[in-house]
Amino acid sequence: MKDYPIWHPCTQMKDHEKYPLIKIVKGKGVYLYDDKGNSYIDAISSWWVNILGHSNERLNNVLKEQVEKLEHVIFANFVHDPALKLSEKLLKIVPDGLRKIFFADNGSSAIEVAMKMSFAYFKNNGVIKPKFIYLDSGYHGETLGALSVCGEELYAEMYKEIMIENIRVKGPDCYRCPFGKSREECNAECFIYVEEAIKKNKDVVSAVLIEPIVQCAGGFKIYPEIYLKKLRDITRENNIHLIADEIAVGFGRTGKMFACEHAGITPDFMTLSKGITGGYIPLSVVLTTDEVYDAFYSDYCVLKAFLHSHSYTGNPLACSLAVEVLNIFEEENLLEKNKEKYEYLYQKVLEYFSGYKYCGEVRSKGFITAVELVEDRKSKKSFDWKKRVGFQIYRKSLTKGALLRNLGDIIYFMPPYIISFDEIDKLVQIAYESTIEVLGE
Amino acid sequence: MKDYPIWHPCTQMKDHEKYPLIKIVKGKGVYLYDDKGNSYIDAISSWWVNILGHSNERLNNVLKEQVEKLEHVIFANFVHDPALKLSEKLLKIVPDGLRKIFFADNGSSAIEVAMKMSFAYFKNNGVIKPKFIYLDSGYHGETLGALSVCGEELYAEMYKEIMIENIRVKGPDCYRCPFGKSREECNAECFIYVEEAIKKNKDVVSAVLIEPIVQCAGGFKIYPEIYLKKLRDITRENNIHLIADEIAVGFGRTGKMFACEHAGITPDFMTLSKGITGGYIPLSVVLTTDEVYDAFYSDYCVLKAFLHSHSYTGNPLACSLAVEVLNIFEEENLLEKNKEKYEYLYQKVLEYFSGYKYCGEVRSKGFITAVELVEDRKSKKSFDWKKRVGFQIYRKSLTKGALLRNLGDIIYFMPPYIISFDEIDKLVQIAYESTIEVLGE
Repeated sequence: MKDYPIWHPCTQMKDHEKYPLIKIVKGKGVYLYDDKGNSYIDAISSWWVNILGHSNERLNNVLKEQVEKLEHVIFANFVHDPALKLSEKLLKIVPDGLRKIFFADNGSSAIEVAMKMSFAYFKNNGVIKPKFIYLDSGYHGETLGALSVCGEELYAEMYKEIMIENIRVKGPDCYRCPFGKSREECNAECFIYVEEAIKKNKDVVSAVLIEPIVQCAGGFKIYPEIYLKKLRDITRENNIHLIADEIAVGFGRTGKMFACEHAGITPDFMTLSKGITGGYIPLSVVLTTDEVYDAFYSDYCVLKAFLHSHSYTGNPLACSLAVEVLNIFEEENLLEKNKEKYEYLYQKVLEYFSGYKYCGEVRSKGFITAVELVEDRKSKKSFDWKKRVGFQIYRKSLTKGALLRNLGDIIYFMPPYIISFDEIDKLVQIAYESTIEVLGE
Repeated sequence: MKDYPIWHPCTQMKDHEKYPLIKIVKGKGVYLYDDKGNSYIDAISSWWVNILGHSNERLNNVLKEQVEKLEHVIFANFVHDPALKLSEKLLKIVPDGLRKIFFADNGSSAIEVAMKMSFAYFKNNGVIKPKFIYLDSGYHGETLGALSVCGEELYAEMYKEIMIENIRVKGPDCYRCPFGKSREECNAECFIYVEEAIKKNKDVVSAVLIEPIVQCAGGFKIYPEIYLKKLRDITRENNIHLIADEIAVGFGRTGKMFACEHAGITPDFMTLSKGITGGYIPLSVVLTTDEVYDAFYSDYCVLKAFLHSHSYTGNPLACSLAVEVLNIFEEENLLEKNKEKYEYLYQKVLEYFSGYKYCGEVRSKGFITAVELVEDRKSKKSFDWKKRVGFQIYRKSLTKGALLRNLGDIIYFMPPYIISFDEIDKLVQIAYESTIEVLGE
């Protein structure tokens, strides 16, 4: 691969000496098609973005119409209907109290915006609070600000010398609960870790960052809503912001439109991206409260404005797609319709995997179902990471017609919502067969 | 504006109590059209991105075709023709020695990638060099990593407590040369500042970041190529990377395809964005050398891979547009064709402004021409910033049919390359009349 020009993300390029890259020529529905005539069920919605499938006719049409009107315009002093419509629609459905919308391009940038806004809010009010609290297994993107609140060594450790140090605390880990509780009897005992960190550091902390309900890139750790409720209470009591990162879990992925709804909370900042345009074009937004907005609102010469720009902020093509995604949610009653499908998916996965000797846990929330494979079910001991068990299963599944990209030794299902019951059957069967072929019956 | 839902970038929202936002409904060529029937010549290519004008027919068609094939696919383990073609085309025209291409979404993210790659290159080779050198007036984006190498207080000062501290040095400032030189007799005497910083800090510095030839957001400071040549030499001698940020100046803006060509240098990293898709969709790339790539290339379990991902990395829609932009450059011989236009623009601006009592300097490089207005020509004293002279001219020009967004008290022209000579006439005339109406003859 030394003569190949592209450096792919999240990849040891030398792997491709053994495993050639797959060239995709077409996408349609849940399927991707390569140049050799193979097809793949996109079980992970291409990194969790193509929530309505590939080459969705409605989205295609919207894009084609919008490009004839206005593809782009600077978003300072100018505005356009796609952004106005998107704002109007989004603000109607996000948790009560989120009233302002700031645009950016990608998830990492949205997190950076939220962190900067939170810090500057306090500074504009005369208080310097330069720290952020984040959780083990939390993932919020990989630009250096976002990475400074990443609870995954794999991404963050390498760069610790060029990042500010924030405050990391133990997060929920229900499969391996340190308090020995089951999900049923849990009262978020593990909340004590973040509680202690908040009490100890409240004078220097601007915000706590969290992925509501499911920590995705950190291992699909699903935790109870009571944790979020407690976190909302304690941050409010201590004048600390709560940044809810819904980049991965927003737009129906957990069964609710936004994962915060499971706990009935309103964060001070909510970040959205990924599925927002249905997987067509990068777009992200940060939603916040009037209280935050007002701290920046004053006469120009007071210099309190929030300065943060990306050239493509509020891009009309992206916004028009996002509007249509929300139209589809409404008109097709998608949240309701998804229920039957994701419950079926979960049951199917249980059926195949729950009795399997290397299946540690099958866990599910809405349209996320994950299987954590372990060497020993009883002790919950993981496989030696160097064996790359999950990766081998991923490779195997590709030969059988599914894109089931592993996360370590976790095999997970986050398909486009348009997947059919038959396709679910096929997908889970491929996952199981691939697992068996790699690890044995 | 307290009830308005959108929080616009780079804006004191309270300003809009007095100046209503303008709603754009259509773009075509150099023109933007609002909902009241007004049109505006987009003199700044909507933040320097729409280099081929709005609603360009060729770009529209490419987008419409691509969306029917493949709108998106995960870019780890998968690839597609638009990315392959773009890589092939780009690597043919970038400075010799740049051989690998890494994709991201926006300019800030590209800078973060380059900084992380540079740092990790040295760390993979056993050396920790946690600092970066940057110049006064340098601008590289506003995520916290990019902002930590920003030489503009306006953007960076507020966040200094939540960023790592890098090494800032005096950069070139030819209009107010501290050595009293004119542009003609300059030998980059001011290079001594960065030279000293490098010599003093070489053991802790991974890279120097610079915008080649023109520092744009920092005040359109145009500096001689000798500065860049010296910088390339000294960084190489001291085993420090050079990151050339061509996000604003790439794709023909300075007269060459890439600004590094003026100095005939190859940086270790080159970042591109903005004009890359012709102003349609966010996309950025980082180009680098085999030497850098090789430091990350090894067996998986050595854990040397470069981990940095954005969901939309290598987005096919964006890549297909970028390919077509390069096709247009080639087929229409754009670089050559632009010459006559930007020389005409420069002459026109000189004609109107050079004798004007508040014109400090008219400076130009390729398709960038800037007028710095000052209170006193002799002492080069700026206007009191609180008077917002540039802003008033910007507001005035809007009423006359031009989007001439000021940068402080600098009025600048970075129009789409498709602008006609007549439109140049009209634009410069509007700029001059607006200036006169604000400041007097």
